[in-house]
Amino acid sequence: MASLKGKDILHGNQFSKRDIDGMIKIASDFEKELKKKDSLTLLKGKILATLFFEPSTRTRLSFETAMQRLGGGVISMASAEGSSAAKGETVGDTARTVSQYADVIVIRHPRIGSAKEAADAASIPVINAGDGAGQHPTQALLDIYTIHKELGSLKNLVVSMVGDLKNGRTVHALVELLSLYQARLHFVSPENLRMPEEITSNLKKKGIEIEETEDLEKAASGSLLIYMTRIQKERFTDLTEYERVKGSYVIDGEFLKKLKKKTTILHPLPRVDEIRPEVDVYPGAAYFRQVRNGVFVRMALLAMILGKR
Amino acid sequence: MASLKGKDILHGNQFSKRDIDGMIKIASDFEKELKKKDSLTLLKGKILATLFFEPSTRTRLSFETAMQRLGGGVISMASAEGSSAAKGETVGDTARTVSQYADVIVIRHPRIGSAKEAADAASIPVINAGDGAGQHPTQALLDIYTIHKELGSLKNLVVSMVGDLKNGRTVHALVELLSLYQARLHFVSPENLRMPEEITSNLKKKGIEIEETEDLEKAASGSLLIYMTRIQKERFTDLTEYERVKGSYVIDGEFLKKLKKKTTILHPLPRVDEIRPEVDVYPGAAYFRQVRNGVFVRMALLAMILGKR
Amino acid sequence: MASLKGKDILHGNQFSKRDIDGMIKIASDFEKELKKKDSLTLLKGKILATLFFEPSTRTRLSFETAMQRLGGGVISMASAEGSSAAKGETVGDTARTVSQYADVIVIRHPRIGSAKEAADAASIPVINAGDGAGQHPTQALLDIYTIHKELGSLKNLVVSMVGDLKNGRTVHALVELLSLYQARLHFVSPENLRMPEEITSNLKKKGIEIEETEDLEKAASGSLLIYMTRIQKERFTDLTEYERVKGSYVIDGEFLKKLKKKTTILHPLPRVDEIRPEVDVYPGAAYFRQVRNGVFVRMALLAMILGKR
Repeated sequence: MASLKGKDILHGNQFSKRDIDGMIKIASDFEKELKKKDSLTLLKGKILATLFFEPSTRTRLSFETAMQRLGGGVISMASAEGSSAAKGETVGDTARTVSQYADVIVIRHPRIGSAKEAADAASIPVINAGDGAGQHPTQALLDIYTIHKELGSLKNLVVSMVGDLKNGRTVHALVELLSLYQARLHFVSPENLRMPEEITSNLKKKGIEIEETEDLEKAASGSLLIYMTRIQKERFTDLTEYERVKGSYVIDGEFLKKLKKKTTILHPLPRVDEIRPEVDVYPGAAYFRQVRNGVFVRMALLAMILGKR
Repeated sequence: MASLKGKDILHGNQFSKRDIDGMIKIASDFEKELKKKDSLTLLKGKILATLFFEPSTRTRLSFETAMQRLGGGVISMASAEGSSAAKGETVGDTARTVSQYADVIVIRHPRIGSAKEAADAASIPVINAGDGAGQHPTQALLDIYTIHKELGSLKNLVVSMVGDLKNGRTVHALVELLSLYQARLHFVSPENLRMPEEITSNLKKKGIEIEETEDLEKAASGSLLIYMTRIQKERFTDLTEYERVKGSYVIDGEFLKKLKKKTTILHPLPRVDEIRPEVDVYPGAAYFRQVRNGVFVRMALLAMILGKR
Repeated sequence: MASLKGKDILHGNQFSKRDIDGMIKIASDFEKELKKKDSLTLLKGKILATLFFEPSTRTRLSFETAMQRLGGGVISMASAEGSSAAKGETVGDTARTVSQYADVIVIRHPRIGSAKEAADAASIPVINAGDGAGQHPTQALLDIYTIHKELGSLKNLVVSMVGDLKNGRTVHALVELLSLYQARLHFVSPENLRMPEEITSNLKKKGIEIEETEDLEKAASGSLLIYMTRIQKERFTDLTEYERVKGSYVIDGEFLKKLKKKTTILHPLPRVDEIRPEVDVYPGAAYFRQVRNGVFVRMALLAMILGKR
């Protein structure tokens, strides 16, 4: 694996299979170490700056936890209110400024390309934690780590991805990584929220077997893993259509009964109605374990880019 | 005292007299230790998550100080802006998510019952730091600790509680704890802000001697302790009535002169006009010491529920 | 140098030349130590409270970095939302409350004089990080430190200060400190944004040589250092005038070519258009180094007022 020391984490496609295997190994080591003690000291004295121009409590707290579990410190901008951006400063200048304070930056920004701008200007490594409709690579990495852990391997995967596949930044990044492992993919969505043609044709070129359907039940029955996502009301002009679609992609107790074998269920969270609370006790319901895995994966990335792994 | 290890702190009435005595002892030990050094290392490596769906700088900073004085780390959501709640996530799901990051949660939420919901879903202990009109148990505990310290004992208490006794979450919780010690209670309020009948009848059942009055001076003269609270403008429809009432419950230099003996004055703060600045130098004015005691009490609770005391 | 132990940092004019020389020495020592390791342990166990009633991410993160690089902890109010101020609490009461939590307070507040109020009430040292149109002394100190580092000395300075000299809190504080070193000063501004007469006459009384001009090029050619500031749109009623003025105080590649010798360029940042990106690679462009120096200077001040230097 090429060293990530000093590197930025900007895009899901920057990783080779070997990178990912290395990251999985390191995250897994940290997971084991945290079973023995609460926190490590590997990044003692280092400072992480979280710059959230668009608030996201979940992602921010996950990174801040990862840094602290490694013994590091955190400086935090939880929202753009009062930031220099309001005074007309470029993202690049902000990144260069914060480079004078911290050792690594995690940035979320509503504009696509902004994380790259920050990284180009910064003198320290930058991690993209979501740049609008663009990328959110650490989410895809934690998904891959979770699949590896839950299924024991990344070989011979059959995955159903469900919901809003058109706008879902998460699923776009994840298919990119899954394609490295020749996974077979079912894309389950309403007609108007299908996976963009650009992505499907690209997958086909790589020889990935894909199937598109509106039928969750059928797709799920042949899958080892269901990756659920939220269907966002604001994507619809016709609310009747929204209600119909929303209702058709729901995992509940009834649905679980129809599954022939244990199936792993993931979701990037937050969920609204698409996975009912009664599903939480199902052994394959792995979405909260997925949240925890995010901490280990982010610990691995922080340690790697700061040259400590 | 029953161990608090792994327990939630949700309601003032969950504590026995023995619990409180134990908590006082531990808080007092921490207070002594902090005179010798700035911070301890008891919770090194542990992480506290403060989730403030309703902002409260004072309470949040008190908990974050307590955690850091014990050597622990903090991840913090200072307001609900950008939280997953805005995307429709339940408090339970948020709590379960944050359980994957932290070792203990402190939550404030505008809705009554929300802290219980969080605790039921979380896999780590949850401390209620105010759930709307509901409870705020750590405030009551720090009040009790302060009374114990200022008066030297919790025996033979005669306490005047003053102000908005109808809506005051703080006084409701405090009388509950004071009743464990058979305190004699004066309730001083305008007619429309009297202590709810449910509470007074309950106290009477327990054999607590109570007296209700509108006359602060009279009540105070027989009390060892005056517990002032703020009268909130927004509780009144008639603003003339508000001005009259507000003016009648004020502690100032004149008032102090009429007191026959040293009387301890507490207030949960912030105050507006009900205690005048000239009172601050009065030896019995203990409200800023009360703030400091909050740190020791919260240190005790954090240490106890994390199994370190 | 008089010890700063336990002192407040409120106003640029509280420092003697000896104070500044001492501060420069300490900041410089910290800078050297941080080349060897990421963080020190001098303030281990100490807690800094940052109270930003008016948000300023840059200044807040600089102080929080300084505290953490010294091994200390931080509690933070990033904006006034949800603060007790909203409930009518005075700045003094807030400061006294936070004195019960932390070991030192950094405050920014939109009202002039508020930092002094906080300091008078607080039982711990208070640092003014900007009180409206008032003071922001640590900015002036980091400017002085930067000048000392960039030019090798504070003797025989010739400085051009450029932009909005009327409203610029930063330049007002800086001239005060520069006057201690008998610097020769060029004030470059449009007519309506000239340095206030009170300040210029005061400087003249001290025997400081000053020159006022609208011509940046001329002033710059005789200066060792150009201190740029942002011209704020909101100061103008006539927008045509704003555009004219703004355009006349710009440092770009063309401007640099006309400089006869290496000239140091500073800016308190954020910049908008007044220094063009192509200037960033110019060896004398010191504004991002200036940002980094802010951390060392604030480390020095924190260590000094907490009695550790």
